Amino acid sequence: VPTALILGSGLIGAVIAADLAGDHADQDGEFRITIVDARPEALERAQAWAGGRLRTLVADLADPATIQQLAAEHDLVIGALASHLGYQTLAAVIEAGRPCCDISFMPENALDLDAAAKARGIPAVVDCGVAPGMSNLLAAYEAGQLDHCERIDIVVGGLPRQRRWPFEYKAGFSPADVIEEYTRPARFVEGGRLVEREALSEPELIDFEGIGTLEAFNTDGLRSLALTMNVPNMKERTLRYPGHIELMRIFREVGLFRRDLIEVGGAQVRPLDVISHLMFPMWSYSPGEPDLTVMRITVEGMRGGKRQRRIWNLLDDYDSARGWTSMARTTAFPCTIVARLLAAGRITTSGVLPPERLGGDESLVRHILAEQERRGVRYRFTLQEQ
Amino acid sequence: VPTALILGSGLIGAVIAADLAGDHADQDGEFRITIVDARPEALERAQAWAGGRLRTLVADLADPATIQQLAAEHDLVIGALASHLGYQTLAAVIEAGRPCCDISFMPENALDLDAAAKARGIPAVVDCGVAPGMSNLLAAYEAGQLDHCERIDIVVGGLPRQRRWPFEYKAGFSPADVIEEYTRPARFVEGGRLVEREALSEPELIDFEGIGTLEAFNTDGLRSLALTMNVPNMKERTLRYPGHIELMRIFREVGLFRRDLIEVGGAQVRPLDVISHLMFPMWSYSPGEPDLTVMRITVEGMRGGKRQRRIWNLLDDYDSARGWTSMARTTAFPCTIVARLLAAGRITTSGVLPPERLGGDESLVRHILAEQERRGVRYRFTLQEQ
Repeated sequence: VPTALILGSGLIGAVIAADLAGDHADQDGEFRITIVDARPEALERAQAWAGGRLRTLVADLADPATIQQLAAEHDLVIGALASHLGYQTLAAVIEAGRPCCDISFMPENALDLDAAAKARGIPAVVDCGVAPGMSNLLAAYEAGQLDHCERIDIVVGGLPRQRRWPFEYKAGFSPADVIEEYTRPARFVEGGRLVEREALSEPELIDFEGIGTLEAFNTDGLRSLALTMNVPNMKERTLRYPGHIELMRIFREVGLFRRDLIEVGGAQVRPLDVISHLMFPMWSYSPGEPDLTVMRITVEGMRGGKRQRRIWNLLDDYDSARGWTSMARTTAFPCTIVARLLAAGRITTSGVLPPERLGGDESLVRHILAEQERRGVRYRFTLQEQ
Repeated sequence: VPTALILGSGLIGAVIAADLAGDHADQDGEFRITIVDARPEALERAQAWAGGRLRTLVADLADPATIQQLAAEHDLVIGALASHLGYQTLAAVIEAGRPCCDISFMPENALDLDAAAKARGIPAVVDCGVAPGMSNLLAAYEAGQLDHCERIDIVVGGLPRQRRWPFEYKAGFSPADVIEEYTRPARFVEGGRLVEREALSEPELIDFEGIGTLEAFNTDGLRSLALTMNVPNMKERTLRYPGHIELMRIFREVGLFRRDLIEVGGAQVRPLDVISHLMFPMWSYSPGEPDLTVMRITVEGMRGGKRQRRIWNLLDDYDSARGWTSMARTTAFPCTIVARLLAAGRITTSGVLPPERLGGDESLVRHILAEQERRGVRYRFTLQEQ
């Protein structure tokens, strides 16, 4: 029985653990799982969801030496830590020479560790969630179905089902990462060149079956696709209920997202800390509050002399029976499915692999989609041809 | 030659000084004027506007003993200090036994000093600006034209001529007083009873000739009218460009107007101090930036068996020749006109007099309107009869 190490027992790590522990394991091999987190209560939740089949370990994972030692003791490692720990954790796991997959959404470029992973002969699948993750996989797969791919457009959002004034938004992951998305310039590929746009710019209203009208806006979400795919036009945008973005633009304009210290009333504070303190409690999901995940991947180009638009749509909802958020489901399942593929030796390429590197293998893509479908996460394909 | 003391050389105090110093004095007697402020540069501006005809004095006016001593040395006193100093200043002037008028917009109830003013035998005209001020005077005058007055409705706003994202607002007076208006519950009279409404509530779109559509919303502006007028329905509301109020409601909801200390990043701060620090610079008029003042006073009831609606409209603009804001013009002129009436002995009633107490004297009202018209501030009357 292979051993798996799960680093981080947050909302997503706990669902990864429960899934790997056999919740959907009737067609899969089994693992002996260790899950590690600094917070005992987070481990307890994971243990409850996994039916007591985990080995839990309380440890501070901010130290790469701890990571490396733990990784060396397991056959497979899954990284589900906070984004700011992602890169150093991945480096330590690669150093330990263990195959791994990661969903930490690290700000650094994971491809910088490609040589190290190749040197150790191990596959390290990064950005292995929904977006980044399934977005990369399906974009690359569909680009491969075309003779010439001209455009990849990805829009994606995690949203509360119920819209509540004034934000009509709650954060399924770290709200600080959300603000980072709202402030960092968005990088796109246009006409074959990397261009920068202001974050939150160019809002566009788009209708979605089962939701209604949402607003797409520029965010810096292409990540590795901008480097790995030879497609002249690529952009990733984020979706919110209409109005949220205008409000965030105003907050930014007023200076509430500033990270420098200002002096007020004799004290020195960062405005971002103040607005985070006030706003983030309003961005927290209540226990049992339903969320949704919506994504549309549009890949456009020529095939057999005809213009095709190849579109994948995802709409996923909260799992009220298990209490799993849609954000956790749609992010965790690609990761657990790929983890099983790693354990089964189905992914043999060594190096740091963003999911588009797996998109050329049709049977692998079909398997990843089918396994998600079995867990209730349904991607739907539409072909438009002119 | 009577001597006049002007307390405060802010934007409005300086215009008061220039007007009293003879800028429009061809039909008026003259004053020997002392203007006092803690800021030498504010006194310099007033001196320039008054053509060098002022005696200026640098003094800290936060000490009521200073006020009382200065007041005793003059025949007439005009209060144009910040709102938080208004009440203690008025009390000190009354103590000195000098007739006075005031535009400080004090939060306290000036009528509490009525007995003291009566005991000294002096008239103290308070709230003697545009609103409060002309609003009180005209509401009372028109109520007196009816056999039975059923309703007084006042809407008023000071706005920048040019609307700039995101606030479409600038503060012609203390921005802290504006936030106070946005947070303090609004008190109205409905069906003869004093009722409270949440500040910023019940927005209503209203069109104004020469401006376009504005949004009226509940603020606590009735002040003395709620106590002195026996009219069953009275409300005063504030006007902004549409959208501003929604944004202020959101800021309030998020907690940005909270006055309690919160701890962020190891420091203790009041959220209101933080948002004020960030937002107030965006609320400041640039030098020469044109503002406007808009007001509509509607007085409704029965006269001679017919239903009448007696409406006064004011739309006033920035005086680009003099560099006087509309806010300063419309506030200062009622005060200087009343000051001259006080000096001429035309107002003899002793006690604290909010302007509605002058509204029963038709010749006085006509004079105050005519003198403003001569200064380019035009109130227009409309009668609707059914």
